[in-house]
Amino acid sequence: MNYYQDLVKDLARETDSKIVFLIMDGLGGMPVSQDGKTELELARTPHMDALVEKNTCGLADPIAPGISPGSGPAHLSLFGYDPVKYLMGRGVLEALGIDFPLKPGDIAIRINFCTVDDNGVVTDRRAGRISTERCVELAARLDKIKLGAAELFVRPVKEHRAAVVIRAPGLGDRLNDTDPQVTGKRPLPLEPGDEPSRKTATLANDFIKQAKDILKHEQPANMLLLRGISSFARYPSMAGVYKLKAAAIAQYPMYRGLARLLEMDLLDVGDRLENLFDVLEQVYADYTFFFVHVKKTDSAGEDGDWSRKVDVIEAVDREVPRVLALNPEALIITGDHSTPAVLKAHSWHPLPVLLASPNCIPDRETEFGERACMHGGLGRIPSTSLLPLAMAHALKLERFGA
Amino acid sequence: MNYYQDLVKDLARETDSKIVFLIMDGLGGMPVSQDGKTELELARTPHMDALVEKNTCGLADPIAPGISPGSGPAHLSLFGYDPVKYLMGRGVLEALGIDFPLKPGDIAIRINFCTVDDNGVVTDRRAGRISTERCVELAARLDKIKLGAAELFVRPVKEHRAAVVIRAPGLGDRLNDTDPQVTGKRPLPLEPGDEPSRKTATLANDFIKQAKDILKHEQPANMLLLRGISSFARYPSMAGVYKLKAAAIAQYPMYRGLARLLEMDLLDVGDRLENLFDVLEQVYADYTFFFVHVKKTDSAGEDGDWSRKVDVIEAVDREVPRVLALNPEALIITGDHSTPAVLKAHSWHPLPVLLASPNCIPDRETEFGERACMHGGLGRIPSTSLLPLAMAHALKLERFGA
Repeated sequence: MNYYQDLVKDLARETDSKIVFLIMDGLGGMPVSQDGKTELELARTPHMDALVEKNTCGLADPIAPGISPGSGPAHLSLFGYDPVKYLMGRGVLEALGIDFPLKPGDIAIRINFCTVDDNGVVTDRRAGRISTERCVELAARLDKIKLGAAELFVRPVKEHRAAVVIRAPGLGDRLNDTDPQVTGKRPLPLEPGDEPSRKTATLANDFIKQAKDILKHEQPANMLLLRGISSFARYPSMAGVYKLKAAAIAQYPMYRGLARLLEMDLLDVGDRLENLFDVLEQVYADYTFFFVHVKKTDSAGEDGDWSRKVDVIEAVDREVPRVLALNPEALIITGDHSTPAVLKAHSWHPLPVLLASPNCIPDRETEFGERACMHGGLGRIPSTSLLPLAMAHALKLERFGA
Repeated sequence: MNYYQDLVKDLARETDSKIVFLIMDGLGGMPVSQDGKTELELARTPHMDALVEKNTCGLADPIAPGISPGSGPAHLSLFGYDPVKYLMGRGVLEALGIDFPLKPGDIAIRINFCTVDDNGVVTDRRAGRISTERCVELAARLDKIKLGAAELFVRPVKEHRAAVVIRAPGLGDRLNDTDPQVTGKRPLPLEPGDEPSRKTATLANDFIKQAKDILKHEQPANMLLLRGISSFARYPSMAGVYKLKAAAIAQYPMYRGLARLLEMDLLDVGDRLENLFDVLEQVYADYTFFFVHVKKTDSAGEDGDWSRKVDVIEAVDREVPRVLALNPEALIITGDHSTPAVLKAHSWHPLPVLLASPNCIPDRETEFGERACMHGGLGRIPSTSLLPLAMAHALKLERFGA
């Protein structure tokens, strides 16, 4: 654990006060309109604006100035975990996201079913996005593959995506993806970075060979690509570190996986935005920390569709009164990282953050947006400070020292 | 390497995009006028003001709040090197600045020729600023001194300044300057802080004794003072860490020395301010990072001449359109540290920073000055964040984690 989190752990106390983290994935943006406004600034957000007016805002760096994070490390930061120390691969997150009971030392891998031509060249990296039903069938067949003394598990995820877990002693995860990232190329060979990873590569190559044979007549899913090969290690739990009873209200596998890693309770959520808040209301009495995750801000940003991103932000704003009606002692509204529609990608820009609590000192800002947050009362802080700040505002931290 | 720089190293990619660091040495100031404006605020800087209006600004701490840095550590920070970990003495910087081929383990020392009276008391710490020609003659004579098995090199620098290098195994650099800093005192004795430095002190004392004898009739340069005794160790290069092709467009030996340390290419530059920008234009196609160093802001600050400092800043502003015409993907205009004319010395005040890039989010500020920067969109960040930020804005950093 890092120094700061160690300190917070020593000071944390269990209380009934409630903290809500309302996370709009990829919230931060860049100017998109004629008058230079960002997605968040363009969105009509009367409820969030009123919250800023009575409370405070600022900017948060997920990792450090200039660093564009993936969703995994960005979320770890939000929960106060040093994102560099606790970096974990997407394979592990995916496997946890489908509730696979990983054990320490397991190697978890994301697979994409793909299409290759007669020369083995990839022609579709997603096999035409086969149906989830088809994915279930194919995963069941691949799950029967034997890898000598090692255990193998293949589980469907969604459409063309599945997860593979290899269990054996002494496996390393210094391995590249076989996904060439573009069509017109063959899958890449595995190049292990150390001796334990060589052992993993041997098993993974055996798996690929047998899988290829099983899939050869399964057009368009006649091959597979390995991604995010990563080893699982247990994390300190949210309960252990912060004495929080934590609930994850998130729909997407990767975010559920991350929440499971920190031993939050994973709650079932329906498909619609309002379902997140239905669940929040239903379980509000049972937990002291709520991670509410909205995915579609990020998807819109990645698609370069600033107008859709504005719509999602406005839809979230309409749900904010339901959160306020619950009266949490600390409410943070922010993202995990920025995904400006103009860049169509995660970016390094620090996140706009809103902190609302009866114990905060209101600043001079009156609306929720990147510009307001640049001048807000929180200043510019690392994302790892947000949970300690929320705990402080919810009076969950003892004094440090006499 | 430090944690942050390690991370940036892992994420750096080579691209053709360009980064310009326009560094006005000692840029930061303090209120000097009746209406409380600083040197930078008083200067008419229409081009830099327009840049702030369309881009963003903020404050940077070279080392940490409250710490006044020397030029060496202040520049290391600008280039993203932990200035405490990589602290290197002025002797090394001076020797590198005159292109002396230092080897790891060499002890480098700056010397000032000085004047002493019959009692050995210093009456002029700069020997009346003897001519550089005289310095060349004297250095050549001192270069003939023999120090037993150790190798000795004495090289002229400029006017009363020269550089000494002692090469022998196992030499330490925990040694004070012999310069008493004021006239009316004798040179200070060397007080080694550990055993390897005792060995250095023995050699240096032998050198001083022989030099004193050679110089005794060379009024006004009849003695010398040792300063910045320091051991040379190789640094990670800018190319190795950041994958940047870096050019140093700097005139003064110490800054050239520092750039050489980081294996930037040292370009020849004429004496006049505009020559810096001539060179920038000439070599713009050949590099991806440009360190353009203006010294005279600092000299004016050190002399307490705020009006001259204002003039230098205005002269630099007039050259800014030449930089903009090149269209760098990221331009940072700042200093290495503050040198307020009212203090006549380097100070701890954080630096005004201007960051211009098509990928930045404009803040609400409209002019370049300390006050605007206090409220700017970059917030208050360490100087070590500036290069990572510039790389991010020039799209030279990959995403961290999945």
